[in-house]
Amino acid sequence: MTPRTGLWLVGARGGIAATVAVGLAALKQGAAATTGLVTEGPRLGPLVERLDPIRWDSLVLGGHDIRSTPLAEAARLLENQNGALPHGSAAAYADELAEADRRIRPGVAFRSGPAIERLTEAGCLHEAATPRAAIDQIRADLEAFAADNSLDRVVVVFLGSTEPPVDTASLPARWEELGKTLSDSAGCPLRASSLYAIAAIEAGMPFVNFTPSLGSDCEAIDELARQRAVCHAGRDGKTGETLLKTVLAPMFAERNLEVMSWVGHNIFGNRDGEVLDDPEHKATKVHSKDAVLPPILGYAPQTLVSIESIRSLGDWKTAWDHVHFRGFMGVPMTLQLTWQGCDSALAAPLVLDLARLIDLAQRHGEAGVVRPLAGFFKSPMGASTSDFGAQSRELVDWVASLNGAAS
Amino acid sequence: MTPRTGLWLVGARGGIAATVAVGLAALKQGAAATTGLVTEGPRLGPLVERLDPIRWDSLVLGGHDIRSTPLAEAARLLENQNGALPHGSAAAYADELAEADRRIRPGVAFRSGPAIERLTEAGCLHEAATPRAAIDQIRADLEAFAADNSLDRVVVVFLGSTEPPVDTASLPARWEELGKTLSDSAGCPLRASSLYAIAAIEAGMPFVNFTPSLGSDCEAIDELARQRAVCHAGRDGKTGETLLKTVLAPMFAERNLEVMSWVGHNIFGNRDGEVLDDPEHKATKVHSKDAVLPPILGYAPQTLVSIESIRSLGDWKTAWDHVHFRGFMGVPMTLQLTWQGCDSALAAPLVLDLARLIDLAQRHGEAGVVRPLAGFFKSPMGASTSDFGAQSRELVDWVASLNGAAS
Amino acid sequence: MTPRTGLWLVGARGGIAATVAVGLAALKQGAAATTGLVTEGPRLGPLVERLDPIRWDSLVLGGHDIRSTPLAEAARLLENQNGALPHGSAAAYADELAEADRRIRPGVAFRSGPAIERLTEAGCLHEAATPRAAIDQIRADLEAFAADNSLDRVVVVFLGSTEPPVDTASLPARWEELGKTLSDSAGCPLRASSLYAIAAIEAGMPFVNFTPSLGSDCEAIDELARQRAVCHAGRDGKTGETLLKTVLAPMFAERNLEVMSWVGHNIFGNRDGEVLDDPEHKATKVHSKDAVLPPILGYAPQTLVSIESIRSLGDWKTAWDHVHFRGFMGVPMTLQLTWQGCDSALAAPLVLDLARLIDLAQRHGEAGVVRPLAGFFKSPMGASTSDFGAQSRELVDWVASLNGAAS
Amino acid sequence: MTPRTGLWLVGARGGIAATVAVGLAALKQGAAATTGLVTEGPRLGPLVERLDPIRWDSLVLGGHDIRSTPLAEAARLLENQNGALPHGSAAAYADELAEADRRIRPGVAFRSGPAIERLTEAGCLHEAATPRAAIDQIRADLEAFAADNSLDRVVVVFLGSTEPPVDTASLPARWEELGKTLSDSAGCPLRASSLYAIAAIEAGMPFVNFTPSLGSDCEAIDELARQRAVCHAGRDGKTGETLLKTVLAPMFAERNLEVMSWVGHNIFGNRDGEVLDDPEHKATKVHSKDAVLPPILGYAPQTLVSIESIRSLGDWKTAWDHVHFRGFMGVPMTLQLTWQGCDSALAAPLVLDLARLIDLAQRHGEAGVVRPLAGFFKSPMGASTSDFGAQSRELVDWVASLNGAAS
Repeated sequence: MTPRTGLWLVGARGGIAATVAVGLAALKQGAAATTGLVTEGPRLGPLVERLDPIRWDSLVLGGHDIRSTPLAEAARLLENQNGALPHGSAAAYADELAEADRRIRPGVAFRSGPAIERLTEAGCLHEAATPRAAIDQIRADLEAFAADNSLDRVVVVFLGSTEPPVDTASLPARWEELGKTLSDSAGCPLRASSLYAIAAIEAGMPFVNFTPSLGSDCEAIDELARQRAVCHAGRDGKTGETLLKTVLAPMFAERNLEVMSWVGHNIFGNRDGEVLDDPEHKATKVHSKDAVLPPILGYAPQTLVSIESIRSLGDWKTAWDHVHFRGFMGVPMTLQLTWQGCDSALAAPLVLDLARLIDLAQRHGEAGVVRPLAGFFKSPMGASTSDFGAQSRELVDWVASLNGAAS
Repeated sequence: MTPRTGLWLVGARGGIAATVAVGLAALKQGAAATTGLVTEGPRLGPLVERLDPIRWDSLVLGGHDIRSTPLAEAARLLENQNGALPHGSAAAYADELAEADRRIRPGVAFRSGPAIERLTEAGCLHEAATPRAAIDQIRADLEAFAADNSLDRVVVVFLGSTEPPVDTASLPARWEELGKTLSDSAGCPLRASSLYAIAAIEAGMPFVNFTPSLGSDCEAIDELARQRAVCHAGRDGKTGETLLKTVLAPMFAERNLEVMSWVGHNIFGNRDGEVLDDPEHKATKVHSKDAVLPPILGYAPQTLVSIESIRSLGDWKTAWDHVHFRGFMGVPMTLQLTWQGCDSALAAPLVLDLARLIDLAQRHGEAGVVRPLAGFFKSPMGASTSDFGAQSRELVDWVASLNGAAS
Repeated sequence: MTPRTGLWLVGARGGIAATVAVGLAALKQGAAATTGLVTEGPRLGPLVERLDPIRWDSLVLGGHDIRSTPLAEAARLLENQNGALPHGSAAAYADELAEADRRIRPGVAFRSGPAIERLTEAGCLHEAATPRAAIDQIRADLEAFAADNSLDRVVVVFLGSTEPPVDTASLPARWEELGKTLSDSAGCPLRASSLYAIAAIEAGMPFVNFTPSLGSDCEAIDELARQRAVCHAGRDGKTGETLLKTVLAPMFAERNLEVMSWVGHNIFGNRDGEVLDDPEHKATKVHSKDAVLPPILGYAPQTLVSIESIRSLGDWKTAWDHVHFRGFMGVPMTLQLTWQGCDSALAAPLVLDLARLIDLAQRHGEAGVVRPLAGFFKSPMGASTSDFGAQSRELVDWVASLNGAAS
Repeated sequence: MTPRTGLWLVGARGGIAATVAVGLAALKQGAAATTGLVTEGPRLGPLVERLDPIRWDSLVLGGHDIRSTPLAEAARLLENQNGALPHGSAAAYADELAEADRRIRPGVAFRSGPAIERLTEAGCLHEAATPRAAIDQIRADLEAFAADNSLDRVVVVFLGSTEPPVDTASLPARWEELGKTLSDSAGCPLRASSLYAIAAIEAGMPFVNFTPSLGSDCEAIDELARQRAVCHAGRDGKTGETLLKTVLAPMFAERNLEVMSWVGHNIFGNRDGEVLDDPEHKATKVHSKDAVLPPILGYAPQTLVSIESIRSLGDWKTAWDHVHFRGFMGVPMTLQLTWQGCDSALAAPLVLDLARLIDLAQRHGEAGVVRPLAGFFKSPMGASTSDFGAQSRELVDWVASLNGAAS
């Protein structure tokens, strides 16, 4: 019998989650093509297929959120924002959206930063005395989700708004020590994203951090994951401008063309944009976008990444990149890019792919960071390269090796 | 003692040749950085170095051309066209340019098409009764170049203006048959670029075709090359817009994003632009630029490539690409690129790289098409992939294997 | 009592006509803002209002077409082509669309060129022995429309696909002579657009040519219009790239910056695009777009306009313009534009504006070309300037003068 | 005899001043075209000519600066920064540059902000106990310049780096009161740019403020100018991105298209860029660029202007503008612009034009703000419109009226 799998989304009422919910409903009914799904693509698809991956029609959605807006409302917003979802989607899948809605539980907003706290609605929050109490509550929700829905397996994906940076120098390297801080709200250096990570790992559920927030990206939490034999991956889904950077920068390296400066200006208008308008939150995001070039080029050109919230654009991320480079005899040349992408439509299929792939990793006995998933992230944990082409090959090679192990 | 190598350029008075000449002079004097030279870059450089490649200071330039404009004049033009060469270059290297000038011989313009014939100057042409006579004259020039300059080895690179297409169906597959047509001007299906290829191969000199013209890209000439144990490579240097296509298209494939249409509009104003303004000549070029996507994507989106001559741009190739693609749930998105590159500054170092690499292939006993050089060309002969990242790895692997053989 | 006015569209089943029909229905119900309507804007609106213009809710639609696709079908296509109409429009206004549909009569396709003839459907064409017979049939349709709907006035707007160019040198300058050719199919130099113009003028109805086809743009037809005291205007609605040119070029003139070249590359995928893919038809359009710069600049820079049909873009006209100019001390600089506009949404309100304004002209006793409407057209008949700012002032001044006359 | 006129530049060692110096020298020798000079253009040229304007060959340069870098050095920098000046210029006009250099006097840096103070070199500053003492010193320099060079007239143009904003609410409205604050360094609300303005006006010399700093833009200083019958004009030369805005925005207004958002992202790398990298200084500039749209559109769309210093670009200001607007039936559309302009080559001829035009105003007996010069500035004092087309007409009308008065 096909195992029943759960997909638990933190940020379950946001744009990506709504797109996941609508897309999944459409896939179940055969009403959507598999465009955008890496695990259904020509390269990876056949290899994944042989490993008996999560089937879309046996996937059950649930999640946490700090807001109460119904999923159907989020879907309608996407429909009306320049067609980020096909028109009529919210109506067509109203039942599925309502069903998923009923499985959304109040979230946690521990030290999440001013912009997130402003968005938090009364009654949508677990009140918890300490980080440990919050973790236990999250874990209880996850386990209830599994039990109530007779799920064989659950994958947790963090999609919450970007938190302010954490001073990673302050984090203890060992789980034993980090764990001790959890009983003391004032002394605990973590933010909500990491509490979710700990809860998932303690529940034995693989954890994916699709955002620039810290999540599981610290040595102590990785130690916990390895101890519990749980897989985790992240950090910050690579969907648009940064994806382009990691595709194009290798060309400059191969051709020995010197990048003098690389400027990226991003504008968009969804809720993420609102949160990122707060400088505390923006710092985390800009850092994640800005660090990819030096490892590829072998030197650090002047770079500048800006992100601004322009309400009229809704979910449409528009990015302008200006690359100033030098060729033979020092001649300066220019490459400009304009990317007009729909953020949730780019991210949602990758969330489904990541659920499938980390589930495969977990089932094949891996533990800790799943390094071959690096190409999905702007700031991949434990990555050996930032070059997207090389990352794509590593992913294919890894899935092929799982096939080998399976045969 | 360092062997003396000759680099024979067909189209020796054009912009690329002038940039090669100035660049080589500057490299010899340590006045230019190695930016733009793939064989001096961080990836390939160390591997190439161990194989004792052509040294820039022992490289002697010569060539054929159908015009009489001195090289120094071409260099001055590049200087004054928006800085395609650093200012003062023509003056600084006047002696080297004059010396190279003296080694340029009258070219051949057999069936080269109306636009090239218009450019041909009286007295700059070998008059030859038959293609065979033309080949013999070219070969005599090549051998005199080697003898006069005490050269141990010579590489021939074809940089002539783009010829009209050849009906390849009309070409005999065997050298024995193609060779027979050479004594009959009316019956010979070849154009000048192929006569140069045959002459070089018969002289035992490796041949590189950096243009979209046919050159050595037919079965019969490849058979000749393998018989004579001579290396050849080509077709059409990949320097700008097409390079970008082969870098970006793999991203769409990896992410399973469906490219609906890809439009490329190219404008530039050098002599190449003038020749391509003639529809007969343009057909060859557009075909070469337009064929790269389907092998990468696995399907054929609507594509359109236009090339127009805009005089004010001089050597600055400006390309606008518009990619219309579809993501999850069919959402249409757009990527636009503007490339402002200096054609000769992009091409010249690749000519030097190709001379080095085909010379290495020849010295290591290879014969026929040198497939690992595919990444240098828009329409690579015998290529297994159009993906630039994959091509770059094949190149590195091949040079590494030469190292292995050498050790 | 408010006079009832008819708006007769030639090309009544196309994208612009469908947008006019939906927009008008929405305006009548107060469901649409007046955005895009010049006669409702802050500058012209108050002046027009005082002249008692055509009221949207008393405007009756009818027209000719050579196709049978229902208007509702055209509206659905626009809805689904990236939102060229708000979703749900076709359904919401199904009754109004069906009603307008019933008033569409078979069109005329006299010497309309191969691409238009390929589109013409059986049964959708008036069979007529001579141009004169066709004119009489058109006129009968126009008069029946007025009578059947108790219309006080009718305006005819030509929106048909672009015809091949007419050799204007061959056109007699006097109506007396041109009129004589109408009884001889072989000897008549005109195409369908001009037959519609003549029919409208003979029926005493103002005629607007929103396309690059000849229409009423010849001396003899203008003579007819003046004789019959009928207003006409045209040629080729200025909605996107050319509008930008006539807005930006004056800046270069004012600042004494020298435009060296101006390249415009247009891609789009609606039926217009299909017709323009035929070189015979494209010539007419390119000429219209390409002639605006010299009168503004006072000299003729190198220009290039290309138009290509890219199906995936549907009604979305995307234009890339590259302007290469020179400043003080000859320094070359660049301005690039990318325009992503929805053709029918840009054109439809102008059709409504032109109906209003030419109706005002007619009612105020003008006859012949209405010159102050020049700013609406790429190739305005009898225009004193191509500068859009100057044209806008002339329009305001003219409407103000009508106010003066009215008071 | 031709009157001898002096042009005194504050910021006399910067990029604009160096371009003015080289350009003037080239104009005197007939070695430069008049491209970029508005007063030599087809529209204004003939009208200005009849008024006997300043002749380039009788114009003497001088100025203040807070740095010691020779003008020739600044010119060489421009030459080598991607050709902001033609190559060889610094060498060709070495004598003229040296001569102008000798007439540059130490400047004043009163409350000029941290970034400017960091640039100030020892010995290049007038030490003054109070603002009044500084003004007197400046005036003494101006009068010595006139006397030493037998000048009939002098125009002062302020080109200094952008100062932090002044709290204009704190400024007294009457000169009598503002004047009193000058003897008290702590109590004086002004910054250096305004001290220069006062000095020029007190010396009876017309003053132009080409920067976003306050300069003469306050009621009290304007009162002084009117009292002394001196002309002044400004604020912030309109050379690139903002020029485009005031050219394009009127189109959206005329066509009743609703601008939802307008984003402008500017990158460049000259000294101005460095100063603007300091947030205190940047605030002044962004405000000036950001205020032009509402008066033209009649409402305030969301706008965002960013300016970043990218060293590799040197004097090449690259601006990307993204305009998101709505048409009929609410359909959203997009216009993007990329401007690649050379700042000093755009500004320098306008400085010469402004000297000519304000000199004409002064000679024709005007006093106070010269309003018809509004089109030259981003934040014009006393302007009736921000629409560049309308401003250009006002300028032509004004010069024509001076002709009328003259005849």
